Amino acid sequence: MNYQRILEQVINQTDPLVAVGHQADYIPALAEVNPDQRGICLHTLSGEQYAVGDSDVRFSIQSISKVFALAMALSLEGDNLWTRMGKEPSGTAFNSLFQLELEHGVPRNPFINAGAIVMADILVSHMLDPEHDFLAFVRRLAANETINYNRLVAFSERSTGYMNAAIANLLKYHGNIHNNIERVLQFYCMMCSIEMSCNELATAFLPFADHLRPFSFGGVELTSSQVKRMNAIMQTCGFYDEAGEFSYLVGLPGKSGVGGGIAAIHPQHYAVAVWSPRLNEKGNSVVGMKALELLTTETKESIF
Amino acid sequence: MNYQRILEQVINQTDPLVAVGHQADYIPALAEVNPDQRGICLHTLSGEQYAVGDSDVRFSIQSISKVFALAMALSLEGDNLWTRMGKEPSGTAFNSLFQLELEHGVPRNPFINAGAIVMADILVSHMLDPEHDFLAFVRRLAANETINYNRLVAFSERSTGYMNAAIANLLKYHGNIHNNIERVLQFYCMMCSIEMSCNELATAFLPFADHLRPFSFGGVELTSSQVKRMNAIMQTCGFYDEAGEFSYLVGLPGKSGVGGGIAAIHPQHYAVAVWSPRLNEKGNSVVGMKALELLTTETKESIF
Amino acid sequence: MNYQRILEQVINQTDPLVAVGHQADYIPALAEVNPDQRGICLHTLSGEQYAVGDSDVRFSIQSISKVFALAMALSLEGDNLWTRMGKEPSGTAFNSLFQLELEHGVPRNPFINAGAIVMADILVSHMLDPEHDFLAFVRRLAANETINYNRLVAFSERSTGYMNAAIANLLKYHGNIHNNIERVLQFYCMMCSIEMSCNELATAFLPFADHLRPFSFGGVELTSSQVKRMNAIMQTCGFYDEAGEFSYLVGLPGKSGVGGGIAAIHPQHYAVAVWSPRLNEKGNSVVGMKALELLTTETKESIF
Amino acid sequence: MNYQRILEQVINQTDPLVAVGHQADYIPALAEVNPDQRGICLHTLSGEQYAVGDSDVRFSIQSISKVFALAMALSLEGDNLWTRMGKEPSGTAFNSLFQLELEHGVPRNPFINAGAIVMADILVSHMLDPEHDFLAFVRRLAANETINYNRLVAFSERSTGYMNAAIANLLKYHGNIHNNIERVLQFYCMMCSIEMSCNELATAFLPFADHLRPFSFGGVELTSSQVKRMNAIMQTCGFYDEAGEFSYLVGLPGKSGVGGGIAAIHPQHYAVAVWSPRLNEKGNSVVGMKALELLTTETKESIF
Repeated sequence: MNYQRILEQVINQTDPLVAVGHQADYIPALAEVNPDQRGICLHTLSGEQYAVGDSDVRFSIQSISKVFALAMALSLEGDNLWTRMGKEPSGTAFNSLFQLELEHGVPRNPFINAGAIVMADILVSHMLDPEHDFLAFVRRLAANETINYNRLVAFSERSTGYMNAAIANLLKYHGNIHNNIERVLQFYCMMCSIEMSCNELATAFLPFADHLRPFSFGGVELTSSQVKRMNAIMQTCGFYDEAGEFSYLVGLPGKSGVGGGIAAIHPQHYAVAVWSPRLNEKGNSVVGMKALELLTTETKESIF
Repeated sequence: MNYQRILEQVINQTDPLVAVGHQADYIPALAEVNPDQRGICLHTLSGEQYAVGDSDVRFSIQSISKVFALAMALSLEGDNLWTRMGKEPSGTAFNSLFQLELEHGVPRNPFINAGAIVMADILVSHMLDPEHDFLAFVRRLAANETINYNRLVAFSERSTGYMNAAIANLLKYHGNIHNNIERVLQFYCMMCSIEMSCNELATAFLPFADHLRPFSFGGVELTSSQVKRMNAIMQTCGFYDEAGEFSYLVGLPGKSGVGGGIAAIHPQHYAVAVWSPRLNEKGNSVVGMKALELLTTETKESIF
Repeated sequence: MNYQRILEQVINQTDPLVAVGHQADYIPALAEVNPDQRGICLHTLSGEQYAVGDSDVRFSIQSISKVFALAMALSLEGDNLWTRMGKEPSGTAFNSLFQLELEHGVPRNPFINAGAIVMADILVSHMLDPEHDFLAFVRRLAANETINYNRLVAFSERSTGYMNAAIANLLKYHGNIHNNIERVLQFYCMMCSIEMSCNELATAFLPFADHLRPFSFGGVELTSSQVKRMNAIMQTCGFYDEAGEFSYLVGLPGKSGVGGGIAAIHPQHYAVAVWSPRLNEKGNSVVGMKALELLTTETKESIF
Repeated sequence: MNYQRILEQVINQTDPLVAVGHQADYIPALAEVNPDQRGICLHTLSGEQYAVGDSDVRFSIQSISKVFALAMALSLEGDNLWTRMGKEPSGTAFNSLFQLELEHGVPRNPFINAGAIVMADILVSHMLDPEHDFLAFVRRLAANETINYNRLVAFSERSTGYMNAAIANLLKYHGNIHNNIERVLQFYCMMCSIEMSCNELATAFLPFADHLRPFSFGGVELTSSQVKRMNAIMQTCGFYDEAGEFSYLVGLPGKSGVGGGIAAIHPQHYAVAVWSPRLNEKGNSVVGMKALELLTTETKESIF
């Protein structure tokens, strides 16, 4: 498969969309990103790497970090994790309090904010320095020691993140936060603030595409079955209220973030990361969604 | 892969579960089925067929019929279908009115009752004799002309189906039913009442496993892309409030029914149908869920 | 108190509002009423009667009939009635299914449609000819044997009342309708279709203003305490999602209907009925609400 | 009316209830109160005072303080207040987030926690030292300069009040808190922590029973109409999810608190306060509810 040519075509075909949508602007650091950028990068299990556009520009990975948090939490807790949260699609907007209240503080899945805040609490419980350990894991996964948090973004998100604070307090009310709320929220915001390029994300997601090889990075170990199941959760829960749409149009497990990034996996084949800051009204990158749809249509490769 | 041996092992390993759960008893015809039965049947694209247990006993397919209805509706309406319903997981119990009211009469997806009732309305709009045409399609798909409705089950469901009548009236209130409510509900109940065996279901689902071959059965034609997308919807929406759990444990697109049947697909490999009447509290067959989990664990085959 | 002069002032002061709002038009018979009409009528316990405007024109009393239904149901069932419904304000729009589903088919109070449909069911259970008996009671209460149903309105409401049919089916699903759904809905629509003038409504409501005199009309008997408690329910639940607003601005127990009528009570003083067809967005008569606010402001009489 | 004898009878008749229910124990200071205490006190507009039982024991007034907060907020903001909150009954449990989320951060009424937190925000906006000014107002109203906050209770409520913190963050998210969240919550908890006896509460509520006399206490001034309207809000919203029940059984405007106190008003007649710590499952004093029901039944006095 001539992926390089296909990626180039795909990006060209997103030309009419590059100005569509609005980049996240709820914190200044995100609003200041040049919104016209876009890049895509695909790494195959056989070692090939393809890239087009701004694939080496780092951006705020935001909710894509939830995949890394899930890997750590699953490695530490195993199936005990599912006593603290579910693995069902949420069926409502990603930050809704209603479902959480109705279900007594048990988040629907690890990829809504409530679930990720509980994972942050779990990591804080297990580690003396979760900020250090989490970053070390991501750096190892992406094979790049220069990846880092953007503390300005983290601070900004924490200080204006009233909805996340509401969620954390509701979780605490129901006994599903064990540590200090402020401590947990700070770590949660730090995780979201990590900056990576498409190239680095593709590297970091490739191990999730290969359940036949042992997953072991910086002390985080997952079984073959756990790797597959992380894919299942990405498939059903990775795109907020658009999980079904993404599954329908793209057909790959993946995870998006409000920084405009999307990382996806074709199990046993490749990992792909795409980035463009402008978002549709569901909070997913307009260009990113379209690029991945075109990719799987063009290659006729999907999991279905 | 020695599927026959694996299916036998799988069924043996469900021995401790065969008495667990409760069969559907909301209508007499379902309550009278011997609940100790179980069967499984797997058909590969290369033409092999494997079966264990009561795989030739017919049972009420109930909601599995929604897959056949979707194939017809998608064939008739194409992507216009999605103006009448969504394709996102529902995130609540399968017959909830709340979400439907909040979303102004647009069902979340075709596999919740509200969505299937709208599909019934669409088929009634398109066909002079929808009962005939629908049955003809299913017979052709399953290559068996003796498949039939159970009119006693259909009548019984219609006369006690107050929740479905509530849903249909709410849909009509919002303008999303175009025909007479009673007409639509009767046809909906007829579709659910079809009786098939695991063997027949495996035959009928095999074409959905093969998007490379043209899908054309009794006038119902789907493109390669439409076949793949039906798989995507089964993956995210096929198991009521347990879609995530099934995806996590089994990793295949599929659809269950309260008659105790589950049909699932391994794209490009096989279709499998399993049946056992006792249900877990989410309304899915206890033995069926476990058997498919064991099957994909044993064969190490899933879409992820 | 010179009520005649006050009523004239009050009506004059509603001049700027007479064209504000929209009359109910969901059935033709309501849409055809001349919307510019308005009338008010006040009857005191000491026997005085005051009227201004179109106070002898009959209109569709619609939900005001729920007060008469409650009187009958309370007379027949006593406090057993409250096993079938609550007496708390509903806090959402008057025809919402959500709360009913969440609370397992027990309507919040007798004055939302769900509650009134359950009352209709109760009356159907108790009477051989509920249409006859209900009308006989209202005629006796209003001291006028020419009061009647408008069968065209009733038929029209029944045949397009999808939301009420949804509610009735949901109630039946939860076991809170004991008779045939269709029978109950027909009777419910008949009750709503009664036509009365402001004059007749003031007569009919006066007995509810006087808990010291025995309430006994055509076999319907209420204790002093029951009469007072009916006032309490009107106070907290009589105006859909505007019960608080009415209590705040007017300060009297009362009940409104989408025909544009409002009947209210000043306990131990008077009953007042006002009518004008145009409704605000909450479904209450614009002129009616304002007229009663002006009346209690001008007279400095309210229950508080 | 021989109120002294009636109050004695009423309290005697609550003997069988004194051990029923559970006192609030979510903070230590409330759990340590002797739950067997009960007292009642009634002050008439003509200057008579009646008391039975522990009517001079101070207790935590908790949500009863919301009435005082409303008086101040209404005095400061007038009808502008209603741009920040509604005046409709809430129809769900007193601390529910769901309705608040659905209604975009506008609390249903001033007497649910969300509404009172917005009032706290308003007072913080208007005053340099709201703790001082609020206490001064309550002391003046109750004609007792020794009334005070219990800072241990306030601190304890703030440090474990996760649900209130969730509410405050949700309000801030929707722009309905203008000051620092922590500042507002601290003041809110201080207001709730005020300790008063039945005797002092009866004194403090008496001015709300008399809209004909000017309301002016320590700079807080209300018009005759505002006083009446505060009664209307107490009537429809004063008892969480039991406002209808209280209106039905007692028929007086009032306000309860989880400390076990209830204060109520018979407009133009009297104010009454009752206290007993054990609560029913709706959060209202068991003995208090019954005592007031018996009082209005015995005296045949209610607003209806």
